Amino acid sequence: MNSTTVIAICSIITAGVTIGLGSIAPALGEGRAVSTALTSLAQQPDAAKTITRTLFVGLAMIESIAIYCLVVSMILIFANPFWNHVIAHATGK
Amino acid sequence: MNSTTVIAICSIITAGVTIGLGSIAPALGEGRAVSTALTSLAQQPDAAKTITRTLFVGLAMIESIAIYCLVVSMILIFANPFWNHVIAHATGK
Amino acid sequence: MNSTTVIAICSIITAGVTIGLGSIAPALGEGRAVSTALTSLAQQPDAAKTITRTLFVGLAMIESIAIYCLVVSMILIFANPFWNHVIAHATGK
Repeated sequence: MNSTTVIAICSIITAGVTIGLGSIAPALGEGRAVSTALTSLAQQPDAAKTITRTLFVGLAMIESIAIYCLVVSMILIFANPFWNHVIAHATGK
Repeated sequence: MNSTTVIAICSIITAGVTIGLGSIAPALGEGRAVSTALTSLAQQPDAAKTITRTLFVGLAMIESIAIYCLVVSMILIFANPFWNHVIAHATGK
Repeated sequence: MNSTTVIAICSIITAGVTIGLGSIAPALGEGRAVSTALTSLAQQPDAAKTITRTLFVGLAMIESIAIYCLVVSMILIFANPFWNHVIAHATGK
């Protein structure tokens, strides 16, 4: 088990754990936001336009946090500079 | 147990753990959103149209987080660049 | 214990753990949604049509998360590319 293998193993495990762990809080946060928006709609139906607009902006902000985790996972899988360096070094040797 | 085997093992375990871990929070978040939507419908049946529309948009946002985890799992199983490199290296040797 | 055996063991364990872990949250989420639907129906029987329709759409969304876990488990059991490669390599040897 040489350096290349160890770096590949770490990248694979970290990519999976990152998005798996990173999905917990955004999903719970969005569930909470949607839940409160629906309670507010039932309580004050006349303010529906303002409530839904605020909800969508808030959801987009929370969603962006999940997307950060997805981006890091994708970088670790497809554009990993450590892996690229080890590969270039191994083939050059 | 050579490099190829170790990388295959890590990819298999990580793919499973990613979607297993990533399904927890979206499911709880969606359950909470649906639950509140039904309470709101019972409280204000006249606002049904707005409530259901807001609910569906919110569910789609939460569902997308679960889909991110599924995408990473599928990439690790079917389009794993580390595995492809090790295989290409092993057959070329 | 050679490579083939180790990969088989990991695939089996991960397939079980994935669907086992992935079934926890969807089941809790669906239980919560159904539970609230029944409370809402008791509170507002006139809105039964809207409530049941919203419940079914919500259940379908939560169910889909559990199905993602099932799909990954099935792929690990029946369409595992790592296993297929090891088998092809072992028979070719």
